[in-house]
Amino acid sequence: MKRLAILGSTGSIGQSTLDVVRAHPDKLRVVALAAGSNANRLREQAAAFDVRVTALGAETGTEGLIAVATHPDVDMVICASSGTAALEAVLAAIEAGKAIALANKEVLVMAGHLVMAAARRRGVSILPVDSEHNAIHQCLHARRPEEVRRLILTASGGPFRGLSAQALDKVSADAALRHPTWSMGPKITIDSATLMNKGLEVIEARWLFGVPAGRIDVLVHPQSIVHSLVELRDGSVIAQLAVTDMRLPIQYAFSYPDRWDGALPALDLAHLGRLDFEHPDGDRFPCLGLAFRALRAEGALPAVMNAANEIAVEAFLRERLTFGEIPGVIERTMDACDAGGGRPAGTLAEVRDADRWARHYARGLLAG
Amino acid sequence: MKRLAILGSTGSIGQSTLDVVRAHPDKLRVVALAAGSNANRLREQAAAFDVRVTALGAETGTEGLIAVATHPDVDMVICASSGTAALEAVLAAIEAGKAIALANKEVLVMAGHLVMAAARRRGVSILPVDSEHNAIHQCLHARRPEEVRRLILTASGGPFRGLSAQALDKVSADAALRHPTWSMGPKITIDSATLMNKGLEVIEARWLFGVPAGRIDVLVHPQSIVHSLVELRDGSVIAQLAVTDMRLPIQYAFSYPDRWDGALPALDLAHLGRLDFEHPDGDRFPCLGLAFRALRAEGALPAVMNAANEIAVEAFLRERLTFGEIPGVIERTMDACDAGGGRPAGTLAEVRDADRWARHYARGLLAG
Repeated sequence: MKRLAILGSTGSIGQSTLDVVRAHPDKLRVVALAAGSNANRLREQAAAFDVRVTALGAETGTEGLIAVATHPDVDMVICASSGTAALEAVLAAIEAGKAIALANKEVLVMAGHLVMAAARRRGVSILPVDSEHNAIHQCLHARRPEEVRRLILTASGGPFRGLSAQALDKVSADAALRHPTWSMGPKITIDSATLMNKGLEVIEARWLFGVPAGRIDVLVHPQSIVHSLVELRDGSVIAQLAVTDMRLPIQYAFSYPDRWDGALPALDLAHLGRLDFEHPDGDRFPCLGLAFRALRAEGALPAVMNAANEIAVEAFLRERLTFGEIPGVIERTMDACDAGGGRPAGTLAEVRDADRWARHYARGLLAG
Repeated sequence: MKRLAILGSTGSIGQSTLDVVRAHPDKLRVVALAAGSNANRLREQAAAFDVRVTALGAETGTEGLIAVATHPDVDMVICASSGTAALEAVLAAIEAGKAIALANKEVLVMAGHLVMAAARRRGVSILPVDSEHNAIHQCLHARRPEEVRRLILTASGGPFRGLSAQALDKVSADAALRHPTWSMGPKITIDSATLMNKGLEVIEARWLFGVPAGRIDVLVHPQSIVHSLVELRDGSVIAQLAVTDMRLPIQYAFSYPDRWDGALPALDLAHLGRLDFEHPDGDRFPCLGLAFRALRAEGALPAVMNAANEIAVEAFLRERLTFGEIPGVIERTMDACDAGGGRPAGTLAEVRDADRWARHYARGLLAG
């Protein structure tokens, strides 16, 4: 019996996590739940799963999340919240020796070096729940690092894959929120439309798998059936494919190194008929290039990029910025960071400082 | 340094094998060569690779092949010859403790139960070189049998994938020999057009991976880039993809469990653009169903089917049979075997008897 804490239980991944727990009552038990602000749903979940330990971030702040993530009854923490709020809780869980199932991007984008160093030091495993990283984890299964030539992350390409640069600049928040394949929250949906989501995933992949930026590629694949691929040194490529349902990678993270029966329909490639692939267009979607730049620089630049992106996306959703202006806000914030000689990121406090500085700078750009 | 014997060195796979040896002079050495009847090319190969031990099947018969396959200097035997001639040599090599790289279908189709039992008893590994089985071997890498739900062999579908049953009956041997993706010998090319090739591969897969017929599927994939797939119990599917070049699976069989750098161009999915998939049409291509029938029956029926197929294909190539008549000859031979209460296949002699009986019976059908 694996005893779970869920950070972000009321969101999309949190609810899918509870579906997986419901399907495997003999193998999984939820013992602690944390949510951001949805008090009613958190209460319902706690009642339905008989959970005594809960925290509402809006009331308890970081301390409540840490208490949930480090509770003595917990074996594994699934970090299903979005944004940067869970960073301290994940680090505390690692220090407490809890295994981590990670569905949050910001934790590794901001502080991948700190998180992975702590996990190594404590001998804690970090299992990726993002479908792309989960796919790579499955493809790498028991292979040695020297066998691997390249990680290839697939991207749906977002709803604006085919639009011209001019048309892109005019798209509305409503149009951007219609993601072609996955149903997700507004922030990640806009990130998917700008391809910044894929950029953040490239940075995550670097930390999860220890592969440098030069050996990580992105491939646009609109059907989102091939969740990612690994090219091996002899030219062979191993891919993981599945129906697009987050319950699969969540269950994998819980069952690993075992595999449990799945309740999902089998993938029917003949029914799908075809799978398409194309190169991402870096000119029309500059966010992907910004992410590679941040990853190559390391230090605090990924955290700075992530913070500026959050501010820019928020402004776009409030119609204070056009879609085409999002990358510019991020780039100018990154340029300003570099112009100041970069910022340190050797401690969590320094990472938080860089995050705050970047948010302040990006807001200044929007106001100016 | 791995020391190789090549059975069938002058054929297509044999020549690709020598290419792989040429690319890895520090890791591979050829010490023995056998060919069927091409004496000149065999002599050239022996000179080029400084090989002292050779045999020409047309002169030495089975004894020569066995001498090559069991030579004391040999670590691994690659069986690259087509047809049933190599069966005794492969069994002798296994008894002599040689590792086997297997690119021949008939060995396992005729006598999979005997070959696998001998390999288990002698602790000898059999590494598949056929691109489909090689792909499955890569997908299964270090996974436990209980993780696997289904093996999915891909098939190019042959040159007549889109033809009606009426049009199929009229196709010529010339048209059938134009295979869309791989360049191969005439027998395997016709087998590819009738889908019997895939049927033989289903039987091979059953023996190589110990998975019963009910958990092996065939998926038509005209581009031959996804070489095969494995569905795991949670619904996840692992696939192996690569450019279509036999040097890759050959090198894999030699390097396993290591992996060596490859000289082949990397797979460029964006350049390919799309991959297509469809169900095989069992009505228009009955050979696939005959193979599943033979596999379910086991005993000598797979050997009977294989022998009748060889006779039917030979008759088609000599224009004594139409394309549409091939399955009927095989099916009636199988029916006659069943009507006689089946035939035993507990020993190699019994398998050879069944093979002879089926050839005789099928020839009788053609004469009648």
